[in-house]
Amino acid sequence: MSTSIFRAASFVFACCLVALLMAQDTMAQLDGSATEALKSWNDCATKQALIAFVQRVCDPKSSDFVPEPERLAVFDNDGTLWPENPVPFQLAYAFDVVSKRAANDAEFAKHPMVQAVLKKDIPTLLAGDRHEGLLQVIAMTHAGMSVEEFQKSVSAWISQAIHPKYNKRYDQLTYLPMQEVLGYLRANGFKTYIVSGGGADFMRVWSERVYGIPPEQVIGSSAKTKFELRDGKPVLIKTLDQLFVDDKAGKPVGIHQSIGRRPIVCFGNSDGDLAMLQYTTIGNPRPSFGAIVHHTDEVREYLYDSAPKSSGKLIEALAEAPKQGWHVIDMKLDWAKVYSE
Amino acid sequence: MSTSIFRAASFVFACCLVALLMAQDTMAQLDGSATEALKSWNDCATKQALIAFVQRVCDPKSSDFVPEPERLAVFDNDGTLWPENPVPFQLAYAFDVVSKRAANDAEFAKHPMVQAVLKKDIPTLLAGDRHEGLLQVIAMTHAGMSVEEFQKSVSAWISQAIHPKYNKRYDQLTYLPMQEVLGYLRANGFKTYIVSGGGADFMRVWSERVYGIPPEQVIGSSAKTKFELRDGKPVLIKTLDQLFVDDKAGKPVGIHQSIGRRPIVCFGNSDGDLAMLQYTTIGNPRPSFGAIVHHTDEVREYLYDSAPKSSGKLIEALAEAPKQGWHVIDMKLDWAKVYSE
Repeated sequence: MSTSIFRAASFVFACCLVALLMAQDTMAQLDGSATEALKSWNDCATKQALIAFVQRVCDPKSSDFVPEPERLAVFDNDGTLWPENPVPFQLAYAFDVVSKRAANDAEFAKHPMVQAVLKKDIPTLLAGDRHEGLLQVIAMTHAGMSVEEFQKSVSAWISQAIHPKYNKRYDQLTYLPMQEVLGYLRANGFKTYIVSGGGADFMRVWSERVYGIPPEQVIGSSAKTKFELRDGKPVLIKTLDQLFVDDKAGKPVGIHQSIGRRPIVCFGNSDGDLAMLQYTTIGNPRPSFGAIVHHTDEVREYLYDSAPKSSGKLIEALAEAPKQGWHVIDMKLDWAKVYSE
Repeated sequence: MSTSIFRAASFVFACCLVALLMAQDTMAQLDGSATEALKSWNDCATKQALIAFVQRVCDPKSSDFVPEPERLAVFDNDGTLWPENPVPFQLAYAFDVVSKRAANDAEFAKHPMVQAVLKKDIPTLLAGDRHEGLLQVIAMTHAGMSVEEFQKSVSAWISQAIHPKYNKRYDQLTYLPMQEVLGYLRANGFKTYIVSGGGADFMRVWSERVYGIPPEQVIGSSAKTKFELRDGKPVLIKTLDQLFVDDKAGKPVGIHQSIGRRPIVCFGNSDGDLAMLQYTTIGNPRPSFGAIVHHTDEVREYLYDSAPKSSGKLIEALAEAPKQGWHVIDMKLDWAKVYSE
């Protein structure tokens, strides 16, 4: 054989060998590694259903096969990937920023909504249909600065703020079983997205480091920035113009805006995720999977979602779950661990 | 050797062999395949600069190395990836839809802006600062229907509408040298995005098939859809609410909204792309590359961008190009071919 024919033949031989050995490995993976990947889960119905679903949509011989570009999975954040108590973590950020500024600025401290924050007077902040007080706090802490300034502020906060119940940093409180779901889906060719009522700019600061989800796969509440040249340098200033709240019926709208096609997997935890669960699973020409994290664990986490006035209330979506085949995750029973050590 | 040791040893051997052969291939690629990948380009300064830039940012030993998740490249569409004459192709779509409906609906045909479309009376459509007439035509053709209905309509149109100059389908008129740039960047770990003043929903129908760019990497003008359940099935209805025009200073805003970080490569063709070129290249902590497609070829394409009233006018950005180091592509001189055969 000439050198080039020998090279080509060796290449083909080596490729075949690798393919064969990898095929054996893949089969092994189908047997055991899904269980291994989801090891913080007890052997519950939801875990089994998720594994069966993933195997079906990834199997080219299955009638349920879904090509990789369409393997899109969306996850709510607060209450689904990490806790939302005693307040959603982004609110803890806003309150900390307001309190810090009030300590150094007597004029600012006189503002009635700043006073409400300092006194932890949540009813005043939430008064009115549009929660005007809270919106004012959001405006004080999330607008008027450049994107970079905001990113620096969030980054500094999350590197040191401590959660009152766990005495740990907020970014150390992601749910381990859900981190495993993210990793398991990505290992099977899924693109994982956050679709949250929280601010996109807030989450993008740490989503890649904490969840392995890059900024472009974070969909959240947002407003238009304003482009300016300052001393010839481009700057984007945060405003509240065209404020979009990525919650309830806004979630499918946000998904369409950013992705342009339907996801096939959706995890949520409250009635705020109802529309996104419906959009993912009802009338989807592709096979789909919907699941709800039900907060039943008052010891390891919180028990709160059945209260009609809870900010993370789960009443309508829970009632619709059996009709639509959505899987309800009982945190207390289904998760062997809630957090990593 | 036991079977498992034999398996492991074969695996390692095969991997090494493949790695060796692939390394040889990679080296070959660095030498010749960039030129091969960009073969519709003459050997111009822009082509050389692009190849040098890509090699630099992909070389882990270079101080200009950029990790893969940050290799983001943005492309304007109309006039950059395909022509925008005699009218932007999306306008040709809107005019065709209006004309077809007018032929079957006498009442609709009486509308003054429908009359303007039928008479090709562009000044009437563009009158006023906000181009109210044109907006009315956009509303008639881009709102009030479901996302799926709109997608079907665009899909049907693009599969048969014919461009008046070339007597070819619009989707057969993408610039071959730019298709090569898209492919070359992707082969080097870049994520390619469209950032266009055109409608995101319009482009997403065919962007994956035509450019290999999936819907989630298409940023364009858009408005909020409205989520509804119809007979229990989720539907997204197109509206003109919170209309966002992804042009001029809107382009960096759209990029931040969808991606959340700065691109490092930007190709545009008009003053509508000036802000996006500035945002990509000025004060970017990463190395960056900006380029402008200059429409200089009246025979193979069009010669139009120096006219102050042209919709694709290139005056400010062309003046700023030498100051900012943006590469100006002279279509007539730099492209060996404009279209594929």
